[in-house]
Amino acid sequence: MNTVSIIEKKKLNQPLTKDEINYIIEGYTKGDIPDYQIAALLMAIRLNGMSDDETFYLTEAMINSGDRIDLSSIEGFKVDKHSTGGVGDKVTLMVAPILAALEIPVAKFSGRGLGITGGTVDKLESIQGFNVELSEEEFIHNVNKYGVAVSGQSKDLCPADKKLYALRDVTGTVDSTTLIASSIMSKKIASGSDGIVLDVKYGNGAFMKTKEDAKVLAEQMAKIGNAFGRDVQYELSDMNNPLGYAIGNKIEVLEVQELLSHHIKNNTDLYDKSLEIAAKMYSMATKESLENSLQKVKEVCDNKKALAKFNEWIASQSGAVEDIAFPKVKNVYKQNSHKSGVIKSVNAKMIGEISVELGAGRKTKESLLDYDAYIILHKKQGDSIVEGDLLVELGFNNDIDYKAQLEKALSAFEIE
Amino acid sequence: MNTVSIIEKKKLNQPLTKDEINYIIEGYTKGDIPDYQIAALLMAIRLNGMSDDETFYLTEAMINSGDRIDLSSIEGFKVDKHSTGGVGDKVTLMVAPILAALEIPVAKFSGRGLGITGGTVDKLESIQGFNVELSEEEFIHNVNKYGVAVSGQSKDLCPADKKLYALRDVTGTVDSTTLIASSIMSKKIASGSDGIVLDVKYGNGAFMKTKEDAKVLAEQMAKIGNAFGRDVQYELSDMNNPLGYAIGNKIEVLEVQELLSHHIKNNTDLYDKSLEIAAKMYSMATKESLENSLQKVKEVCDNKKALAKFNEWIASQSGAVEDIAFPKVKNVYKQNSHKSGVIKSVNAKMIGEISVELGAGRKTKESLLDYDAYIILHKKQGDSIVEGDLLVELGFNNDIDYKAQLEKALSAFEIE
Repeated sequence: MNTVSIIEKKKLNQPLTKDEINYIIEGYTKGDIPDYQIAALLMAIRLNGMSDDETFYLTEAMINSGDRIDLSSIEGFKVDKHSTGGVGDKVTLMVAPILAALEIPVAKFSGRGLGITGGTVDKLESIQGFNVELSEEEFIHNVNKYGVAVSGQSKDLCPADKKLYALRDVTGTVDSTTLIASSIMSKKIASGSDGIVLDVKYGNGAFMKTKEDAKVLAEQMAKIGNAFGRDVQYELSDMNNPLGYAIGNKIEVLEVQELLSHHIKNNTDLYDKSLEIAAKMYSMATKESLENSLQKVKEVCDNKKALAKFNEWIASQSGAVEDIAFPKVKNVYKQNSHKSGVIKSVNAKMIGEISVELGAGRKTKESLLDYDAYIILHKKQGDSIVEGDLLVELGFNNDIDYKAQLEKALSAFEIE
Repeated sequence: MNTVSIIEKKKLNQPLTKDEINYIIEGYTKGDIPDYQIAALLMAIRLNGMSDDETFYLTEAMINSGDRIDLSSIEGFKVDKHSTGGVGDKVTLMVAPILAALEIPVAKFSGRGLGITGGTVDKLESIQGFNVELSEEEFIHNVNKYGVAVSGQSKDLCPADKKLYALRDVTGTVDSTTLIASSIMSKKIASGSDGIVLDVKYGNGAFMKTKEDAKVLAEQMAKIGNAFGRDVQYELSDMNNPLGYAIGNKIEVLEVQELLSHHIKNNTDLYDKSLEIAAKMYSMATKESLENSLQKVKEVCDNKKALAKFNEWIASQSGAVEDIAFPKVKNVYKQNSHKSGVIKSVNAKMIGEISVELGAGRKTKESLLDYDAYIILHKKQGDSIVEGDLLVELGFNNDIDYKAQLEKALSAFEIE
């Protein structure tokens, strides 16, 4: 077996065998196969695609390249969720305490944000003292004791995927459905859960621009999950508008706490999406109908058991619950509307880009975050407004050209 | 401008601009752009192709990456030839003295062989004393004094092409018509001739397997040449059978001398192909009709002026003409036919592979050649034979498994 002949096969659109894919992934992980050969292969995969079998072998090879998490010492059906990433997406912070309040174990590994896509670990870390680096023992202990633990990953999961992703990023081969699906699913499967609910975003603020593309990706991920014996359900979620009113890190944690406390009444997009996903996860774990599941999920929100679990969870990972408050920043600028009408949309991509400029998101993996930087949307899609109404508020500590950002924020609002 | 966005464009099958192609070639030549990014781009080019404009810009950028040869101090129209490579192809050794005998200046840079493809420089170097490393001054002096010089390249022509070729070789991206055409033509145009006759081979012993593919390549090369203001003509030549009777280095030089001496009468494929190409070159240089040109070319072969020029040329580059003789080897094995019939073909690829095993060709660029190793075909396609007739003879000095090679040689003969 040799690398060039494997590249040639994929170039000629012939399927690769399990052995060939293992040879490539093992060789690349060990450093025996150089980046330039893998780059050529990745481009051939991006342009010629891969069959379901090939995608399965690739996912399996990436899982086998590293550690796996063993969740067997946690009783019950373990459901994971994965969002393909969006602006203002704090659904994990909602569903984790909801499910835990319903005694469904939540053993979730999360990641950091990059670009306009926020990361759950960053948001949690904005809470003073919150420990996102639980050891495996602490993690399992917390799930067993509190019903919930959310942590960054300490084990070396799918190192092949990490290496491949870094190479795809600099060789124009990120946007391959096969490669995206196998990358996400390899990590989910290595993370040890029994079922996975996927929240696949589409729209200007998401990687997939159309609902059709999002569906193709979702179905490919579901196929992979099923091939590994996992229950998989998916949602397709509109990410043309940010989710909720708050974008940032600390501010998003606050938004979740306020929503679970019923202090915010009209936050319907975030509330509905969170309950929908929580219900899917509950249904998957208990085999109850989706309707009954949604009922159960609503109950623990209504009776504030979810809020109590949220506060308990934060404390269980050494987070200071009393620290969850409106962030203090040096600069606050507000933007009013120049016209009257109805807001057709609030461009998620632009809002996400502004959040990066304010320091709430990372330009590169090495960027430092300002947990306090925030954007608050005072109006959202569907709202009627009159000229002079407050639309958006930017809070930050850095020395950016605030005028350009305010202008950009204004132009993100499409008003009819 | 950045490399990833250029890769993305080609991936999406959008044409690259002149500036983008220059950015890539300059950056890669300087070492600013890493191999892995170019590898991904090459695969995208291989799979999505390039327009005529893009191919021209690529060729131009590769020419501009290095030195150019200035042949202006040689009077007259300078015609070059290029063969895409074959087994037993010693046409350059034939046409160079023929044209020089007709007072058409031959200022030719040639290369070394790799794999089953022989190289003119290797063949010439098999002659004792022959200098294939002429300085630019010696080269031009020889053309002006003797009408002919053939040398390896001392200047740094198209370093971008060298780097790209090496990368293509290990990333499965050799077989791109665009990349082959621009690679060949960049070197031909940088070599300074006014016109180029291309001998594009097809068949099992050639890179292009079908006549149709060879024609596509030939036409693309002609387009590039024309875009640079060069006269270009091409031949499509069958390389399912070796050219001539001799395969090796010293033996091929001897075959040419014998043919020009009229000691071999029936070597029609080599003789006809050589005269055809010489006539095309003569016609291009003098604007005479192809028919008249063929007449002129025949004349200098018939009256042995070409032979005299051949011997003069060898001597002019310090080669010992008296050294051109049947090579002396330790081992000679002959293979007779096991059946009677008519030879339908002699597989050029298999004969080429045997020649590499005997040491007449290189397995890798670093391999050392045995100039004396040879194969003689005693029968060729179209010949009638009876069982027991001598088919082929192998001469060599190394310790190979001669039985396997004899068997392979026998099976190269397709007898009906």
